Amino acid sequence: MPGLLYGGDYNSEQWPADVHAEDAALMRRARVTTATVGVFAWSKLEPAPGRYDFGWLDQVLDRLAGHGVGVALATPTASPPPWFSLAHPEALPVNADGVRLSHGSRDTYCASAPAYRTAARRVAAALGEHYRDHPALTMWHVHNEYGTTCHCELTAEAFRVWLRGRYDDLEHLNGAWTTAFWGQHYTDWAQIRPPRRTQYLPNPAQVLDFRRFTSDELLAAYAEQRDVLRAATPGVPVTTNFVLGGWVPVDHARWAREVDLVAIDHYPSEPGIGAEEQTAFAADLARGWARRSPGAPHWLLMETAPNLIYAAGRMHTKEPGRMARQSLAAVARGSRGALFFQWRAPRGGAELFHSALVPHAGPDSRVYREAVALGEALDRIGETAEGAVGARVAVAYDEPSAWALQAAGLPSTRLDHAEEAQRAHRALWRRGIVCDVIGVLERLSAYRMLVLPGHYLMTGAQAAELRSWVEAGGHLVVTYLTGVADEYARVRTGGYPGALRELLGVRVEEFHPLGPDDRVALFAATPGDLWLSPGSAGTGELWSETVHLEGAHALARYAEGVLDGLPAVTRHAVGDGAAYYVSTRLDPESSGLLLARVAASAGAGPERPGRPAGVEAVRRRAGDRSWLFLLNHTGDEHEVPAAGVDLLTGTAVTGAIRLPAGGAAVIRER
Amino acid sequence: MPGLLYGGDYNSEQWPADVHAEDAALMRRARVTTATVGVFAWSKLEPAPGRYDFGWLDQVLDRLAGHGVGVALATPTASPPPWFSLAHPEALPVNADGVRLSHGSRDTYCASAPAYRTAARRVAAALGEHYRDHPALTMWHVHNEYGTTCHCELTAEAFRVWLRGRYDDLEHLNGAWTTAFWGQHYTDWAQIRPPRRTQYLPNPAQVLDFRRFTSDELLAAYAEQRDVLRAATPGVPVTTNFVLGGWVPVDHARWAREVDLVAIDHYPSEPGIGAEEQTAFAADLARGWARRSPGAPHWLLMETAPNLIYAAGRMHTKEPGRMARQSLAAVARGSRGALFFQWRAPRGGAELFHSALVPHAGPDSRVYREAVALGEALDRIGETAEGAVGARVAVAYDEPSAWALQAAGLPSTRLDHAEEAQRAHRALWRRGIVCDVIGVLERLSAYRMLVLPGHYLMTGAQAAELRSWVEAGGHLVVTYLTGVADEYARVRTGGYPGALRELLGVRVEEFHPLGPDDRVALFAATPGDLWLSPGSAGTGELWSETVHLEGAHALARYAEGVLDGLPAVTRHAVGDGAAYYVSTRLDPESSGLLLARVAASAGAGPERPGRPAGVEAVRRRAGDRSWLFLLNHTGDEHEVPAAGVDLLTGTAVTGAIRLPAGGAAVIRER
Amino acid sequence: MPGLLYGGDYNSEQWPADVHAEDAALMRRARVTTATVGVFAWSKLEPAPGRYDFGWLDQVLDRLAGHGVGVALATPTASPPPWFSLAHPEALPVNADGVRLSHGSRDTYCASAPAYRTAARRVAAALGEHYRDHPALTMWHVHNEYGTTCHCELTAEAFRVWLRGRYDDLEHLNGAWTTAFWGQHYTDWAQIRPPRRTQYLPNPAQVLDFRRFTSDELLAAYAEQRDVLRAATPGVPVTTNFVLGGWVPVDHARWAREVDLVAIDHYPSEPGIGAEEQTAFAADLARGWARRSPGAPHWLLMETAPNLIYAAGRMHTKEPGRMARQSLAAVARGSRGALFFQWRAPRGGAELFHSALVPHAGPDSRVYREAVALGEALDRIGETAEGAVGARVAVAYDEPSAWALQAAGLPSTRLDHAEEAQRAHRALWRRGIVCDVIGVLERLSAYRMLVLPGHYLMTGAQAAELRSWVEAGGHLVVTYLTGVADEYARVRTGGYPGALRELLGVRVEEFHPLGPDDRVALFAATPGDLWLSPGSAGTGELWSETVHLEGAHALARYAEGVLDGLPAVTRHAVGDGAAYYVSTRLDPESSGLLLARVAASAGAGPERPGRPAGVEAVRRRAGDRSWLFLLNHTGDEHEVPAAGVDLLTGTAVTGAIRLPAGGAAVIRER
Repeated sequence: MPGLLYGGDYNSEQWPADVHAEDAALMRRARVTTATVGVFAWSKLEPAPGRYDFGWLDQVLDRLAGHGVGVALATPTASPPPWFSLAHPEALPVNADGVRLSHGSRDTYCASAPAYRTAARRVAAALGEHYRDHPALTMWHVHNEYGTTCHCELTAEAFRVWLRGRYDDLEHLNGAWTTAFWGQHYTDWAQIRPPRRTQYLPNPAQVLDFRRFTSDELLAAYAEQRDVLRAATPGVPVTTNFVLGGWVPVDHARWAREVDLVAIDHYPSEPGIGAEEQTAFAADLARGWARRSPGAPHWLLMETAPNLIYAAGRMHTKEPGRMARQSLAAVARGSRGALFFQWRAPRGGAELFHSALVPHAGPDSRVYREAVALGEALDRIGETAEGAVGARVAVAYDEPSAWALQAAGLPSTRLDHAEEAQRAHRALWRRGIVCDVIGVLERLSAYRMLVLPGHYLMTGAQAAELRSWVEAGGHLVVTYLTGVADEYARVRTGGYPGALRELLGVRVEEFHPLGPDDRVALFAATPGDLWLSPGSAGTGELWSETVHLEGAHALARYAEGVLDGLPAVTRHAVGDGAAYYVSTRLDPESSGLLLARVAASAGAGPERPGRPAGVEAVRRRAGDRSWLFLLNHTGDEHEVPAAGVDLLTGTAVTGAIRLPAGGAAVIRER
Repeated sequence: MPGLLYGGDYNSEQWPADVHAEDAALMRRARVTTATVGVFAWSKLEPAPGRYDFGWLDQVLDRLAGHGVGVALATPTASPPPWFSLAHPEALPVNADGVRLSHGSRDTYCASAPAYRTAARRVAAALGEHYRDHPALTMWHVHNEYGTTCHCELTAEAFRVWLRGRYDDLEHLNGAWTTAFWGQHYTDWAQIRPPRRTQYLPNPAQVLDFRRFTSDELLAAYAEQRDVLRAATPGVPVTTNFVLGGWVPVDHARWAREVDLVAIDHYPSEPGIGAEEQTAFAADLARGWARRSPGAPHWLLMETAPNLIYAAGRMHTKEPGRMARQSLAAVARGSRGALFFQWRAPRGGAELFHSALVPHAGPDSRVYREAVALGEALDRIGETAEGAVGARVAVAYDEPSAWALQAAGLPSTRLDHAEEAQRAHRALWRRGIVCDVIGVLERLSAYRMLVLPGHYLMTGAQAAELRSWVEAGGHLVVTYLTGVADEYARVRTGGYPGALRELLGVRVEEFHPLGPDDRVALFAATPGDLWLSPGSAGTGELWSETVHLEGAHALARYAEGVLDGLPAVTRHAVGDGAAYYVSTRLDPESSGLLLARVAASAGAGPERPGRPAGVEAVRRRAGDRSWLFLLNHTGDEHEVPAAGVDLLTGTAVTGAIRLPAGGAAVIRER
Repeated sequence: MPGLLYGGDYNSEQWPADVHAEDAALMRRARVTTATVGVFAWSKLEPAPGRYDFGWLDQVLDRLAGHGVGVALATPTASPPPWFSLAHPEALPVNADGVRLSHGSRDTYCASAPAYRTAARRVAAALGEHYRDHPALTMWHVHNEYGTTCHCELTAEAFRVWLRGRYDDLEHLNGAWTTAFWGQHYTDWAQIRPPRRTQYLPNPAQVLDFRRFTSDELLAAYAEQRDVLRAATPGVPVTTNFVLGGWVPVDHARWAREVDLVAIDHYPSEPGIGAEEQTAFAADLARGWARRSPGAPHWLLMETAPNLIYAAGRMHTKEPGRMARQSLAAVARGSRGALFFQWRAPRGGAELFHSALVPHAGPDSRVYREAVALGEALDRIGETAEGAVGARVAVAYDEPSAWALQAAGLPSTRLDHAEEAQRAHRALWRRGIVCDVIGVLERLSAYRMLVLPGHYLMTGAQAAELRSWVEAGGHLVVTYLTGVADEYARVRTGGYPGALRELLGVRVEEFHPLGPDDRVALFAATPGDLWLSPGSAGTGELWSETVHLEGAHALARYAEGVLDGLPAVTRHAVGDGAAYYVSTRLDPESSGLLLARVAASAGAGPERPGRPAGVEAVRRRAGDRSWLFLLNHTGDEHEVPAAGVDLLTGTAVTGAIRLPAGGAAVIRER
């Protein structure tokens, strides 16, 4: 797959032949390289048990091959056919209330049901067998957006097997789950169930392990199909598209090792500039996951919407040029291309107003014209596909920590690890500092600076790894609630944040969560030390703490209330590095100043110093070559220092380039 | 049934004999003509399977006959007895989660359960047989407020039968439902189920058809009883009371053909003048439905509350005089009278604080005194019952369109066909223009002007009918999303609003839904052309669109954002008529100006020019006679041009009449 | 149990031996007297059916006895072991939807399941037998916070048995439940079910009786255990801890007769001074219940949080000194001591961040240091345990009335008996007037003044009792909706408030509920008669009424709207007393002025005249001795008139004492 991929989901089975012919012409005009085919097509592919109908799909692939479009061929297992659900009602998912769900949507399967797993392997095998030599086949796309939770008896049995594997000894589980609380001591594995609806608060450790189990169970279902397809076509990469969002019971960092290329679906939900920040975060997160994948350092934007941001109960259309700019942002941050959901807007179904490269209005439309322009742009910058992004800063994003902070009994209902991670990322993004968002604390030596934003769960081994890294010169920024709990979500006693107390040189005695409208004032502990000018001040929200210094010194202190004068932000010099602790949620400006200051100490500055605010600047590098992506997200023209050739226009750039409002440049640097 | 009906639900079975005697005296004093009897009385009428106890009911009817009160006799089938539910648990309804509901309320039946249908027919037949010759019997009131949805297996079976009747060929259904999306292709009718709880979004076409099926299934249950009663008493009209509200799975326009007299229950929910607007809308809607009924042009207000507007979580009492004014408003707009829920306030039960003509406080009360005065007033204006309202303007209200716009995948969660229809109606009401609200686009030649307010679903035949009508001189006003989908809720591609693009002379390329607080400014395309003065301006909310002119010309344009300068409101001259398109939700003032202007072009002005704002003026006509109803909803005295005799006072009116604050007049015109 | 109790829940089973040793030392240092042990320990005590393991618990009790700590020994029946739930799935509770809940939390039992009841009695008997002679045993603590509702078939059967006991004749039930409404007439007891999910509004009388039944069923389960324990240890008091809150289906006033000492759990939810008001209300309520208990006049604060107020989705920490001040407030109002949930903060489980006397941070913490200080303070004031509070004023709090006002069909969704009772109590508290909050209208002769705050349900006997009391000189204040319904929640017709119309000398014709933002102005009927100055004015919210005077005279009148000039607050002289009626929810200032005025008339003034606002002053008395508790809840120093010895400091007080901000004194008066 040389160059960059461009295209998207192509559901030709929804359309008659005359539309197919038009599709071919329109794809050619838009320089589409890749079509994702067959997602959800199970009921068409296997209209009756074991009877396959590949005829229509053969035609699709033949036609695409005919005009040079490669196919990411999907296994259709995200949507079992109605006949399957009727034949195997035990393979329909059951919710926490015990309600067995009905077919008539997507994702109506239980991943622990043997009938489902068998049928899924079988249809994957049939596809592998049938298309192993098809010239259009460029990638396998297993399933779609794994993320179904089930609470049925088959799941219960699988959960127990998983727990035996994790704990071996039942007393180990009883300890890890603190079953002494509320008299839940288990005396037989058979007594353990998924967290179904219960009388009052559930056991948080049980809930957390059930999420981990669900992730692993879905991963096993994926791996089975992958292995079948690898056996059929050893040379064709196999992946599945990750869906982001706190509701998905999937620990993607564990999955990243199992896919040949990390692929994500990303739909921003902020109507304004936040959508660009979300795009950058998602891209940097995908790249962080990709470090664990055979396909490293590459990843792929597998789905995004051409013309849709769903915010506040309505579909917001993207302004002219925004689709292209967001696509280039993904490529700039390491994507192998830009694929969309979807090629052509459907007439019916539950997502009939989801946007498409060919909208309901047809090709005589702004969106299709922009799609043609984007195809040309991606074609022109194809060489950048070789490059890789090199970040010196990382922000951790640990999905199990995010899950654990959603438990009911925590000191605040507004705790949100993902939000904290995005806030840290946003602060760095606004200052032009490129970072990886990493799902696992490993190979830290690649980084000069690391932010742990409410990384609630932490093992002793992780804490030790962090200490080594700091001693060797790492700059660590830790925010409140990080390391407070062990991997079983049990609090480490003796003072927070247990696992990192010594490394941070602090001891937290009490939490003081703040109300939704509360703000607590801070002041710089040493005038000039932080927040630069003696008169400056920041604020904290959501959270505050009684922090005692045990080796660290204060950078900022609380300025009111019961914490008046006590430390709020601290720094602890450790070996060749330093460990910072932030005991509240800083206002964005203060957070940015702090992170920029630490980054500067760590020698990890912005990608393109001198870049105006609102202009994104990221570089891909390959050997001694580099490409500088410049994206002007503002409504004004801006000049940015740069030198080389703008691949989008073919123009030489000497010293600086002027970017029009909303404009972009991709500069092959000298 | 000469004159006007007056009375209400009479549940004497809740009271002892001394109360019955008082009821007789109080009814006489209030000149009550009609009592609705027996609603929900099944458990008293049939205390054990097949054993009927008519004794108590005989006494009730005899007594009412004795003092000259006619009876709308109800079949009690809206509330099966506890013994029935225990004997036939399969006849209890099941919700979308699969929970079988319990008895202990009303409406605890599944209309598809044979046991229920049989028992309902049987009790109706027994009533018909027993009371066929009773002198009190003036009307049959079948059931009560049909509207129960069930998701059980019996319903599933009936749904499949209905679908076979609708689609015949399974591939027709697969196409109509777009089952190619998310792999829901059906290969056997047996695979189809009601839309039970599923994993993610349901199929919107399935949901829509299930609502249609539910409406038809309930209608079949009604028709069975009607036929039994008609056979017993060929001369007695049979009806059922329609309940309004978006949650009811009933397409009343289809039902209107099956009732001898359209009867509605109406409970306004706005505490202020909005209640009068709701009353007018409900009346005009009932009159629109009545066009399809054998009883045309008449309809009947079967239930309303004497002293209660439920708004914002509380029961708001009606101010003195308001009960009478709202009752006269219903009669003015064609009702055969004013019946109330209920005669006497109950001591217990779920609606124990629902208001009544005889309140908890007893007859020594404002409410009962007003009831006496209303009885006298209705008696005085009895001759108006002969008259009919003659509207030249219609507003369409299509319940399936309202249902379809409630689907989850639409571009905004705030789309609301009923709200749009009410907004159009309100704008006309405020300008004194009388209109029918019609449920079906038929016999349009009666009208000079028609408003389609988000009439989302549209067949090709409907579009053709509209074209013919416009060509023949009709003035059509179409608002956004009208005609976008076909009858299966599938989008018509090539540009919105597919079915009406040519007629409107526009092509909509993209939607731009607006957020809850967004307003988009408009300006008149031609100074003086619309909104009268060059400097005037309107605003749009909720929705906006990229509109291309393809024959139409712009009346107003967007004044900001990505749509700056593009058409917002257009006019297309077609044949002898014109078709207007409104691509946003106009502010009420602009909407009123536009509709008044179109009405003026169409030659359909206010009923009573010169009427002050807040004074409702509607006319009933019979041959060359006419009655002008004048209702002063304001807090000030007003003079209104009129001539004839005010039937309420017997006073001659020459030139004008002075209406006190809150006052009313019914003028027999010369 | 001489002196005051101090300590809390001690879950040593969650900790290893080294922690046990530390616990012993820390308890000694804090002068802990009492540990609540074994709550929820069933799965540890009976690891398999009928096999008991007392070894670990023997060690706990032996150790506690060894260092002089008494044990409130719990039966563990609030949390059946997993093995039990698997063996007896029919003993798991079922919710209103019919979903059988899963184990994995607490309270996963159905109190009507014979298997549960048998197992609970058995484990209680085993505990009684084993520990009958243990020196540590000072009290039995049955179960924990009874309050589980179940809707299963076993519950249905028990409900029917209870109903037969209550109504005997089925027609009596049909009348009481008004089953003539909506055709719910029952012809066989077997037709009656718990109020499971139904199609529309449930029968409010059925719902109310089901709550009463649930309370009685839980009480029967309690009484069985109590009897078993009493038989084993006749001299040891038996109780259970009441949990407050509108969601609990428990009529605590009925329970109070069955416990040897009323014990409550209390967790305030207001972050500011409201928490002190809640504390006083809960204490006065417990004392009111205690009047019915053998342990009268004493009661016990069995659980409260050392450092936690859960408000607005977050755990708010208590400011320094507040834990002690709230504890002293409970003792001042009659508690036998101050017990906390919990001794040591847990590492895991659903409440892992619930506060504790030994927090996660360990004994080197503010909270533990304050716990030590509190232990010393309680030790110093131990003699006050002999004293009793003597209130001349009572506020009624009738839990069935609160339930009945939660029904769906009432005129406002914001009716709240508990809120009204708390408002009345707060008004009195702010003026320093000590009152009992009483759950039953009995032994009224103890009081000079009584407030009935929306006491919706009222029997004829209660009304007669009130009349006798007023005639004998009682001062009665009745607010809107009191006495409107009988004990079956049926409205008394003829004019509100039926049961008390004559006593109050008013007749209410209509309700006029107000919207959330509405306020109605009032004015004094006689200048100077109420609200003291002619120009003063109050307001009403939530509710207003058309009140006719029938013997009473108006104190205040409505000043606007349809009620303009009509009576709002009235007074009726009856015999030697007076009955006041308040037809709206008065603003707090007006309510306070009215109640203070009535109290003054009744000769029931503040406990400590001259006390500054924000300083709580309550007295315990024993014979001719008395102790004055003074608690300064403000942020300022205040001087309070007092004389005697401050037991907390040992200082003599002559004339007055200066209390620092947040300070307290307990003065043994001369």
